[in-house]
Amino acid sequence: MTQEALTEEKIWQGTAVSSGVAHAVVHVLKEDFDEPDAEPITAEQVESEMERWRAALDATHREIEQLKEMVSTEARSAEADIFDTHLLILEDVSIRKQVEKSVREKLICVDAIYYRLMCKHMDALRGLADSYLRERFLDIKDITQRVMRHLRGELLQHPMFDDPVIIVAHDLTPSDTVQLDRSKVLGFAIEMGSGNSHAAIIARSLGLPAVVRMHGIAEDLHSGDPVLLDGNEGLVILNPTPATLSKYRSREQQAEKLEDALHATRHQPAVTTDGFKVQVCANAEFVEEMGDIRDSGAAHVGLFRTEFLYMEDPAGTEDWLAESYTRAVKAIAPGHVTFRTLDIGGDKVDDQIGAEEEPNPFLGWRGIRVSLGRKQMFRRQLRALLRAAAHGPIGIMFPMVCDVGEVRAAKELLAECAQELSEEGYPPPKQVDIGAMIEIPSAALTADLIAAEVDFFSLGTNDLVQYTLAVDRLNERVADLYSPTHPAVLRLIGLTVEAARRAGIRVCICGEMAADVEVLPLLLGLGLDELSVSAGQISRVKHAIRRLNAAECAKIVEDCRHLGCPKMILERSRAIAQRLYPDLFE
Amino acid sequence: MTQEALTEEKIWQGTAVSSGVAHAVVHVLKEDFDEPDAEPITAEQVESEMERWRAALDATHREIEQLKEMVSTEARSAEADIFDTHLLILEDVSIRKQVEKSVREKLICVDAIYYRLMCKHMDALRGLADSYLRERFLDIKDITQRVMRHLRGELLQHPMFDDPVIIVAHDLTPSDTVQLDRSKVLGFAIEMGSGNSHAAIIARSLGLPAVVRMHGIAEDLHSGDPVLLDGNEGLVILNPTPATLSKYRSREQQAEKLEDALHATRHQPAVTTDGFKVQVCANAEFVEEMGDIRDSGAAHVGLFRTEFLYMEDPAGTEDWLAESYTRAVKAIAPGHVTFRTLDIGGDKVDDQIGAEEEPNPFLGWRGIRVSLGRKQMFRRQLRALLRAAAHGPIGIMFPMVCDVGEVRAAKELLAECAQELSEEGYPPPKQVDIGAMIEIPSAALTADLIAAEVDFFSLGTNDLVQYTLAVDRLNERVADLYSPTHPAVLRLIGLTVEAARRAGIRVCICGEMAADVEVLPLLLGLGLDELSVSAGQISRVKHAIRRLNAAECAKIVEDCRHLGCPKMILERSRAIAQRLYPDLFE
Repeated sequence: MTQEALTEEKIWQGTAVSSGVAHAVVHVLKEDFDEPDAEPITAEQVESEMERWRAALDATHREIEQLKEMVSTEARSAEADIFDTHLLILEDVSIRKQVEKSVREKLICVDAIYYRLMCKHMDALRGLADSYLRERFLDIKDITQRVMRHLRGELLQHPMFDDPVIIVAHDLTPSDTVQLDRSKVLGFAIEMGSGNSHAAIIARSLGLPAVVRMHGIAEDLHSGDPVLLDGNEGLVILNPTPATLSKYRSREQQAEKLEDALHATRHQPAVTTDGFKVQVCANAEFVEEMGDIRDSGAAHVGLFRTEFLYMEDPAGTEDWLAESYTRAVKAIAPGHVTFRTLDIGGDKVDDQIGAEEEPNPFLGWRGIRVSLGRKQMFRRQLRALLRAAAHGPIGIMFPMVCDVGEVRAAKELLAECAQELSEEGYPPPKQVDIGAMIEIPSAALTADLIAAEVDFFSLGTNDLVQYTLAVDRLNERVADLYSPTHPAVLRLIGLTVEAARRAGIRVCICGEMAADVEVLPLLLGLGLDELSVSAGQISRVKHAIRRLNAAECAKIVEDCRHLGCPKMILERSRAIAQRLYPDLFE
Repeated sequence: MTQEALTEEKIWQGTAVSSGVAHAVVHVLKEDFDEPDAEPITAEQVESEMERWRAALDATHREIEQLKEMVSTEARSAEADIFDTHLLILEDVSIRKQVEKSVREKLICVDAIYYRLMCKHMDALRGLADSYLRERFLDIKDITQRVMRHLRGELLQHPMFDDPVIIVAHDLTPSDTVQLDRSKVLGFAIEMGSGNSHAAIIARSLGLPAVVRMHGIAEDLHSGDPVLLDGNEGLVILNPTPATLSKYRSREQQAEKLEDALHATRHQPAVTTDGFKVQVCANAEFVEEMGDIRDSGAAHVGLFRTEFLYMEDPAGTEDWLAESYTRAVKAIAPGHVTFRTLDIGGDKVDDQIGAEEEPNPFLGWRGIRVSLGRKQMFRRQLRALLRAAAHGPIGIMFPMVCDVGEVRAAKELLAECAQELSEEGYPPPKQVDIGAMIEIPSAALTADLIAAEVDFFSLGTNDLVQYTLAVDRLNERVADLYSPTHPAVLRLIGLTVEAARRAGIRVCICGEMAADVEVLPLLLGLGLDELSVSAGQISRVKHAIRRLNAAECAKIVEDCRHLGCPKMILERSRAIAQRLYPDLFE
């Protein structure tokens, strides 16, 4: 092969699961999983073979204990639990007996015997639907890799890196991810996996790019290969040419330039070309964010998620909560802060609240259902919110409302709390708007009935899409069906807006859909005039709105009414978006 | 206490989870779970103590191996798997070491040491949300009970029964349920549990009455106590008086009388008092049922579930399937049989199809999603159905449609299969109606778009209610929120009926709601004129329809339009039902 061929640029396409771009050398995590040769041994060698094996088990045991200690001190106890399971498997008496018996009877080296036995266990477990058993498959694989490595006398496969690397692997086991020197890892390119795999989750939590489903890449690439990992497009580029690198650099520069332009206009109002004013609020979850939010161009907080404060101290007192909420309210006043009451459950389920595992958590005990079932906890939150409201205008909204009765029950509690606080001499709240999250189809379908009870609606489109289409968007098998532009979703949003308009109340939209500039024409066309997005998106969304024409948006919605295909509807909206704010797509 | 007090009738109320009535003596399954006294031992006694303990472990080991063998031969391999886990726990080296160390250091009897250690493990696991760990809690409890029993030298607690008994227990562990002499058990009354607990599931599969959440009953009742277990009302009646027994007997007689009356009129048409004709079809799942169905009073099969045939032989050939479907078609012709294509997934998920476990299976890969992803399997089914259609009229309907695109894709495959079969010389099908199940909110919301593609709709209300309200009805924590009479559900049914009427196509309703005579007034009021219910319900439903007035039903629906409370709507419907066919409620 010529030198050119060796350094030729080559591109692999996978599935992007965590965004960003990284440029570094590859480190391939090899699997110690080639089948060992079934070398014959003599009867005399059995004892030394068994000794070698026991030494490998012992070494593995020590290694796992060390790992366990390591993660325990880092207070990552969930990860530590995994290793307890590993020790249990390692010490399984029946496995030990079977290996010993087979080595004696078959007179074959222990490597091959142990390997085959463990593979048999893995094969049996791999295909099963039961999570307990499936989890044990990865555990057994992990253990087997370790023991095999010790049998071969190989060193630990995860070295500390001197320089930053991009990790390439067939798959990442839990202990792979624990052992990586995270300070040196710039990204992941994985052959297997999905958006929910270990590597993806860790990459997102560390803000690193990651691409999965890169078939064959762990074979094709070698440690030390220079690559560019594009977690936006799902690409790995080996030996990126100067042209490629310069393309990525100029993209980066262009992005910076756009960012500057957006930043400069962030405080200007968001008014369409035909004079339709849209309120763009910010989503928040930490009191500490308030400074950034004021600077982001948002005058109000449209969604303050209270789960993070709760999880900081589930037993936190009313005083502490009130003090925390007050800081948020004061920071934004005279703007308003709309607090969503505790939305524990589903993907955010928290065992601190005593929730048992549910077979379908998204269809389970969550949101207002939990609050109405835990009145003491709920009252504490409501009282704290009312106390904070003395310092500025707030909204209180209830998540996962499926029924007007739930809103009435929550309002009753709120009124009781207000009465108590007044009797206890607390200063009266300034302004408290009461709202219902519209995120369950039944709430959207009965928005007319719920509207009579509240001051505003807040459309939670992530859940609404999920339930309306019966699609768990975190489930890779059906994620393709998750379509915010499904006509049924648009109709439910339309019903909600219409019900609000008739009742004379506000509607805000706060799901991820609200920050998607491609569907913004549809949202405006449906009549929405209040969006709540993360602080980082405010200037972008405002910029897009200023280019749109509300009448044209309404026409698109009208034109799409007869369309059944979500993709086609998305394309119509995207066409407008790309025509009117092409700068946001470059 | 006087003799009267001892034999006084006493009633406990719990939650009925499996219907029926049983009258027998109680057998209380006691928990071997009192904390043993921490009796001190001398250093000299340590060895004999350890020996006693090892003997108990060995005895437990043998016991579990026996159990395992027992369930294995009965081909209940899922149950056998549980015992592999138990052996793993029993042989856990770290537990063994800790017990030995503690006995030596603390000089306390092994009973107390072992018990406390296992309780510590259980407490740690009990509250966690992870299914793997929670499952291990029950496993550890099971093991601990066994070992403690052997330490105490007690006999196995589950005797064989000479006479029929009603099992009373605090909770049933997996091994409890495996070991029961099922031929002698007439029912279950359990302190803990839910509709999904072991006892409930086994009771339903055996057709026995079961009541759960009977707090304190395992303490209050004693083996040998005569009780009447009412699995319809959720009652346990101790020392039932002659009056009570006669009440139950007369209820039974009355029920028989009603049954005779219904039977006599089963073949008469179902026409309301104002001449509105309703087609009452039967749900079916076995070819062998067809005789019963013809005798039940149904002229058509409105829902033939094909999952059972599939599970009988997942690799079954097209010929075998065609032959099976043909037998069903021939048995009902000239009536039609509406086949629902394979609806694997969710609560019926089958690992034979290679489905991995999903965090929210009800929002996952199921129904038409699976079929369109497994084209070869789907074509086999479609070809078999088309071949069967040569022998009588059929319907083919697709489950879990969320999108008109899915219907188009399925129809395209069907057309290809028809073309192939014709080229291969198969006789042409008589009549094949194509339908879409309306069971996802998005399908109901876009029924107008889907109507253009199909000959009929079939409302699957079980799922529709579930998704519309975001409530897993199998989840005890939220089951109260599962309301088929929620206004949102009624509106979706209304939308579906209206869309069908405009397109000139049929709508059938085949969820459990269709067989609920209390909501029948609402269904008729919404304009439904085709129901499909299980064969056993046909005569009952027809009887109710003959007493109803369609105009009055429509008025009730109109009157309920402004109501938000599902219970209130149900009450209005129930009031009509109880007035017009009180005999069905006695």
